[in-house]
Amino acid sequence: MIRPLILHPDRLFPVDPGTRSVARRLYEHIRGLPIVCPHGHTEARWFADDAPFGDPLQLLVTPDHYLLRMLYSLGVPLESLGLHPETTAGAAIDARDAWRVFAAHYHVFRATPSRLWLDWVFAEIFRLRHQLSADTADEYFDVIGEQLQTAAFRPRALYERFGIEVLATTESPLDDLQFHRALRASGWSGRIISTFRPDPVVDPEYEGFHAKLAALSELTDRDAFDYPEYLQALRDRRALFASLGTTATDHGHPSAATAQLTAREAQQLFGRVSSSPASAQDAELFRAHMLTVMAGMSLDDGLVMQIHPGSWRNHNAALYRRFGANIGADIPTPTNYVRDLKPLLDRYGNESRLTVILFTLDESTYARELAPLAGHYPALKLGPAWWFHDSPEGMRRFRHQVTETAGFYNTVGFNDDTRAFLSIPARHDVARRIDCGFLAELVTEHRLEEDEAADIAVQLTYTLVKSAYRL
Amino acid sequence: MIRPLILHPDRLFPVDPGTRSVARRLYEHIRGLPIVCPHGHTEARWFADDAPFGDPLQLLVTPDHYLLRMLYSLGVPLESLGLHPETTAGAAIDARDAWRVFAAHYHVFRATPSRLWLDWVFAEIFRLRHQLSADTADEYFDVIGEQLQTAAFRPRALYERFGIEVLATTESPLDDLQFHRALRASGWSGRIISTFRPDPVVDPEYEGFHAKLAALSELTDRDAFDYPEYLQALRDRRALFASLGTTATDHGHPSAATAQLTAREAQQLFGRVSSSPASAQDAELFRAHMLTVMAGMSLDDGLVMQIHPGSWRNHNAALYRRFGANIGADIPTPTNYVRDLKPLLDRYGNESRLTVILFTLDESTYARELAPLAGHYPALKLGPAWWFHDSPEGMRRFRHQVTETAGFYNTVGFNDDTRAFLSIPARHDVARRIDCGFLAELVTEHRLEEDEAADIAVQLTYTLVKSAYRL
Amino acid sequence: MIRPLILHPDRLFPVDPGTRSVARRLYEHIRGLPIVCPHGHTEARWFADDAPFGDPLQLLVTPDHYLLRMLYSLGVPLESLGLHPETTAGAAIDARDAWRVFAAHYHVFRATPSRLWLDWVFAEIFRLRHQLSADTADEYFDVIGEQLQTAAFRPRALYERFGIEVLATTESPLDDLQFHRALRASGWSGRIISTFRPDPVVDPEYEGFHAKLAALSELTDRDAFDYPEYLQALRDRRALFASLGTTATDHGHPSAATAQLTAREAQQLFGRVSSSPASAQDAELFRAHMLTVMAGMSLDDGLVMQIHPGSWRNHNAALYRRFGANIGADIPTPTNYVRDLKPLLDRYGNESRLTVILFTLDESTYARELAPLAGHYPALKLGPAWWFHDSPEGMRRFRHQVTETAGFYNTVGFNDDTRAFLSIPARHDVARRIDCGFLAELVTEHRLEEDEAADIAVQLTYTLVKSAYRL
Repeated sequence: MIRPLILHPDRLFPVDPGTRSVARRLYEHIRGLPIVCPHGHTEARWFADDAPFGDPLQLLVTPDHYLLRMLYSLGVPLESLGLHPETTAGAAIDARDAWRVFAAHYHVFRATPSRLWLDWVFAEIFRLRHQLSADTADEYFDVIGEQLQTAAFRPRALYERFGIEVLATTESPLDDLQFHRALRASGWSGRIISTFRPDPVVDPEYEGFHAKLAALSELTDRDAFDYPEYLQALRDRRALFASLGTTATDHGHPSAATAQLTAREAQQLFGRVSSSPASAQDAELFRAHMLTVMAGMSLDDGLVMQIHPGSWRNHNAALYRRFGANIGADIPTPTNYVRDLKPLLDRYGNESRLTVILFTLDESTYARELAPLAGHYPALKLGPAWWFHDSPEGMRRFRHQVTETAGFYNTVGFNDDTRAFLSIPARHDVARRIDCGFLAELVTEHRLEEDEAADIAVQLTYTLVKSAYRL
Repeated sequence: MIRPLILHPDRLFPVDPGTRSVARRLYEHIRGLPIVCPHGHTEARWFADDAPFGDPLQLLVTPDHYLLRMLYSLGVPLESLGLHPETTAGAAIDARDAWRVFAAHYHVFRATPSRLWLDWVFAEIFRLRHQLSADTADEYFDVIGEQLQTAAFRPRALYERFGIEVLATTESPLDDLQFHRALRASGWSGRIISTFRPDPVVDPEYEGFHAKLAALSELTDRDAFDYPEYLQALRDRRALFASLGTTATDHGHPSAATAQLTAREAQQLFGRVSSSPASAQDAELFRAHMLTVMAGMSLDDGLVMQIHPGSWRNHNAALYRRFGANIGADIPTPTNYVRDLKPLLDRYGNESRLTVILFTLDESTYARELAPLAGHYPALKLGPAWWFHDSPEGMRRFRHQVTETAGFYNTVGFNDDTRAFLSIPARHDVARRIDCGFLAELVTEHRLEEDEAADIAVQLTYTLVKSAYRL
Repeated sequence: MIRPLILHPDRLFPVDPGTRSVARRLYEHIRGLPIVCPHGHTEARWFADDAPFGDPLQLLVTPDHYLLRMLYSLGVPLESLGLHPETTAGAAIDARDAWRVFAAHYHVFRATPSRLWLDWVFAEIFRLRHQLSADTADEYFDVIGEQLQTAAFRPRALYERFGIEVLATTESPLDDLQFHRALRASGWSGRIISTFRPDPVVDPEYEGFHAKLAALSELTDRDAFDYPEYLQALRDRRALFASLGTTATDHGHPSAATAQLTAREAQQLFGRVSSSPASAQDAELFRAHMLTVMAGMSLDDGLVMQIHPGSWRNHNAALYRRFGANIGADIPTPTNYVRDLKPLLDRYGNESRLTVILFTLDESTYARELAPLAGHYPALKLGPAWWFHDSPEGMRRFRHQVTETAGFYNTVGFNDDTRAFLSIPARHDVARRIDCGFLAELVTEHRLEEDEAADIAVQLTYTLVKSAYRL
C-alpha cells in the first residue's frame, strides 16, 4: 500500500486550537534561528573530505542504533540489514536487499522519534512524496542514491543548507584531530569543533586501557603510567583540543559516582589500576575520582563538563561478541545523583565559574534529584532529555518535571547527540516544536505572558546553548 | 440522594473536541471486535457447571480485592462486608446487610477504575438506571439477585453475550484440570483454556512447598524430590496443560531475579530447598534459577512465558492471619529488570522463537528499563499496564512512556487479569477507549495518519494479542 | 522593560474551553470557603505581638529558601541578597540594594510557583500594577514598605482579611509556647495552634541532641536520660501542646524507617544514643524506633501524626558552614515506604483510630507505594504534594497518580507548609484551581458527574482537611 508522505505544518503542536495558535506564533518567532549543535557524534572527516555520502543503507540505516535495535527486537536478523558479524568471514549483503528489509518493516516505527526524523529527511532533503514501505523501497533507494552523488548533497553543502552555526564532534584524547586541523586550515566557513571525551584513558574497564595509556604517553611525550605525568598528559591534551576550538568535555560513566581522595590515596589507586587489571571496585573508584579531577581541570581551563551516566553498555553479551558495540544493546539503569555527586559538589559545587551539565536516562531523577540540584548549585546545569528520552513525550516530561524547580535558566537548550547528520535539522525541529508547545500551554494557562514565552523560546533555542557551552 | 446512572458514549475520550472526534471514529472501527482474554483468574468450573451465580454480594463484592482494600482503608470492617475471619467461628453476616454497607460507601470509589467497571456492569448487564447508594441498595440487591437466577445470566450465556473468543484461567501444576477436561468434552463452543502457574512448586517459600512437591510426585508418578525427576515432572505437567489448550505460563515472583547456575549448583540448591525449610537467600536463588529453567522449557514446548514480579504479598501480617490471602494487602515494590533479567537474557534473550511477556508494578521502569529491553531483545514483549495501573491514567502512562522506545509491536494488547467475570467487557472497553484516545492524540498532533491509527487500534485490540499469546 | 502585572481570572485552568468552563464553575463553588492551614511554619509571635512586618526584603526574600536557592544557582551571591554569613563579621547590606538585585533577576522565576505566589502577593495584597523588574524595583520597595506600616497590613488584620479559619505553626517540644499562651489569653478570635515536632529530642544526629535532652529534663522535671522518664517527658509535652490546641505532630526524618524493638532493645539503644555520640546506624535505628513509639502515643492521645521523610538536609556543606540551615540546600532522596513503614504498620496499621499522614519528595512512590498503602491501611492517609512538588505540575502529578488507587477520601486536602505568611492565600488558590481543573477533566471525560465533582471540590478544600487533622 502506498500512502502519501506529509509533514503537516502543525505537527507536534498541542491539540487545543487556542493553544496551537500560540505555539504556531512562538514557532514562527524562532524557526529561522541558526542550529547550534554543542554535542554530537558526526565525523569531522566528512566535512574535511567533503566526499559524497555512500548509499542510502550505509548513510541512514546501518549506523543508526535506534533502527537496528527496534528491528532486531522484532526478529529481524542484523545480517539482513547489512551488518556483518565481526566473528565470521563472508560477503556483505547487497545494500538494496537490506534496504528492502528495512522498508518492509518501516511501519514498526510508527509513533517513534525515528519515524519523525526519517520522514523529515525523506520529505525535506530528498523530496520524496510517498511513505517508505515495501512498495516504495526501490524508488527510495534509487532517488536517494542518485541525489547523494550530486554536489548539493555533500557534507559541507548540507551543513550550509541546514543553517548550522557550530557543530561539535566527539573525540578521544588519543585522537590526533587531523580532520579538525584540516578543517581549520581549509578556509571553509563552517565551524566544526571537537568535544574532549577521555573515557578511554580514565576508565580502567575501557577495552585496552593499558594500551591506551601507552598511546597517551607516546602522544604527549610523558610517562602516563606515572600519576603526576598522567594528569599533566591529560591537561596537555585538553589544551590542545581547546586550541582547536573545543569548549567542552564529555564523560560517559556507568554511574554518576564521584570521589574525593587524598593525593596519596589517588596515587596508590592509580598505581593499582595502571599496572594490572583493575578490580570492579577500584575501577569504579578511579572513574569517580577522575570526574572530580576533571572538574578541577575544567575550573582551570574553562572547558564545560558534560556527564552522561547510567547506561549499561553492551547488555547483550552474545550480540556484543558478534557485532561489537553500538548496535543498540545499551540499557539505562537507575542513577543516584544526590549521593553520587556529593564529593564533587563538596569540592566544586559552589564555583559559578564552573559549568557541569548533567544528563540522565533515569527520568525518576528529574523532579526528585536533578532539578533540586541544578536549582541550587551554581556549578550545575541540566542537559536536555537524552537518548531514549530524546522524543516528543520525553521532552515534554523533561520540561514538565524540571521547569518548576530548576527554571529555564538552569537548562542549556537542545542537543541532537547524533551521528545521523541528515537528521540534525529534524531533531532540532522536534525540540523547537515541543518547546513552543510547552510554552504555549503556559501562556494559555496564564502562567506566562506571550511576549515572555517568545523570549524564552529564543533562549531555549539559541541563547542558553551558546552561553552554557561557551560557544 | 438518587442520581441517574449514565454511561456517556464519549466517556474516557480526550477532552479536545477535534481529538475526541478522531477517537470516536477509531473506537467505532474496533468496538465490535471479539474479546480475547489471554490472562485472568475466572474459574473454569463456572463454565463447566454453568450454574447460576450466587447473590450480588458473593458475585460482585467479596471476591474483589480492589473493593475490599478501599473500604477497609476507610475504616469499614471486613466482617461488615460479609468476610468471615478464618480464625474465629461464627455465623456469616446477612448478604443484604453487607450489600447495604457497600452501597452506602459507593461514593468512595469516585474516579477509581472500580467505579467505571461496576457502573458498566450495573447499567449494561443489569439495566439499572440509578447510581448505587444507600438509597438504592435494596433495589440493586433485588434486581440483580432476580436476574442472576435467569438463564440469560448463566456463565455460558454471558460469555456468548460478551463476545468472548477465548478466556484463559490460571491453574497450578497440581490442578487436575477436571473442569477444563469437562469443558472440552461438553461440546460447548466457548474456548476456555488454562495458564500454567507453577509458583506453588517452584517457590520454596510458597506455603506448604514440600507437601506440594509430594503432590507433584503423586500426580506425575515421578520423584519430585529428585532434581532431574522434578524437572521432568514439570515438563510432564506443561505438556498436559498444552494438550488441553494452554498456550502460556505465568510466574509471580517477589522480584524479577533470574540466575544461571551450573547443573551441579542447581542440583545442590534443589537438594537444600527440597529437603528442609529454605533460607531467604536460597529461596530467592531457586526462584531465580527456575525462571531461567522455565524459559528453556518454553523454548522447547512453545508456551509463552509471563512474568508478573514485584508484589509484596500479604504485607498486612495481622490481616493475613485473620482472613488469608487476596484481601488487598499486596503492595508493589521497586523492581530492577536490567540487572535481574540479565542471566536469563544472556541465555535466551536472542531467541526470537521465545516470547517472554514482562509486567510491572513499578512504573518508573517503563521508560527506563522495560521499553529499552523490549525494544532490543527478540525474546521480550511488554504486557499491558497491570493491577493498580489497570486504569485510565495508568494505561495512558503506559502508552506515553513505552511507545516511543518499544513501539506498538513489542506490546501485546490488553489483559483483564480479573476474577470478576461480569466486568470483563467493561475492562476491555476501558482499554479500547484509552488506546483510541491515545492514538487520536497522535493523529491530531500529526504523528500518525488516521488510517494508520485505525490499523494500530485493531492490532492493539486483537491481532497482537492473538499472535503474542499464540492463540 | 515595564510589563503589566495581570492575574488572569482563568489562570491554571485547563486549556480546553469546555473543560475550562467546568473548572470555572467548580472554582466558583469553593472559592469562598475559609482557608484551613493545618501544617506550616509561620510564627506565633507575629500574631501575639501583632507588630508591623519589616521591610520588603526581610518579609519576602531573605526567609524564602525557594528564592534564595534559585538565585544562588544562577550565580547570585547570597550576600548580595542581604544574607549575612554566620562565620564572618561585617555590616549587613542595604535592604534596598538587595531588593534591586532580586528585582533584576525576577525573570528567572518564570514558570515557577514562586512567581505565581509572589505575583499574587504583589497584585492582590499590595495592588501593584506592573511586573517586578529592575525598572520597577524602587517603586515596589517603596509601595510595599509604606503599606507594611499601616494597620491593615499587620498580622492579625491580614489573617482576617485572608479568611483563615485556623493556622498551625510548628514547634519543638522544648518550646515554651509563650506566644500560643499569649494568643489564647488575648481574646483575639484567630485560631493559631502549634504542631508538635519532636525531631530535636528524638533524632540523635540533631545538632546538640544531648543538650536538648538536658533541656527536656529541666522543662519537665524528669530525667530525660532515663528511658522510661524520657518517654514520659515526651508524653507530658504532647499533653501540654494538646491542652493549647495542638492536634498533630510532625516528623522530618532522613528516611521513612520505622522499627519494632523489644523493651530491652529499646532501653539499651537509648542508653547508647543518650550517653555518647551515636553511630549512624544507632541514630537511624533510634529514629525508626521513635516513629513507632510516637504512633503508639498518638493512638493514646489522639494527635494526628505527620511523616515528612526523604530530605537530605544541608547537602551543600560549605554553604551550611557559612550560612547555617534553610538556605535551600536540602535535596530529596529516593524513599522506600513499603519496606520502611512495615514495622510501624505491623503494630498500628490496622488501627482506624490512628491517623498517620504520609508525605513524599519521591514522586515515583505515588502510584507504586503510597497510594496502594493508603488504599489499604486504615491508619494511613496521604498528605498533599510537598515542597518541590507544591506547584501546578506537581499537584497534577499527585492527583493523576494517586487518585485511581487511593481515591479522594484517603487524602487530606492542601498544606501551604510555608513561613511566607503573605503567600498563604496564593498557595491555597493555586491548589484550589488545580484541583478544580483536575475534577473538570474527570467531568469532561464523563468519569464523574458535575455535581459529584462539586461535592469533591468542597471535600478537598475544606471537609477532608478538618476531619483528617481533627480540627
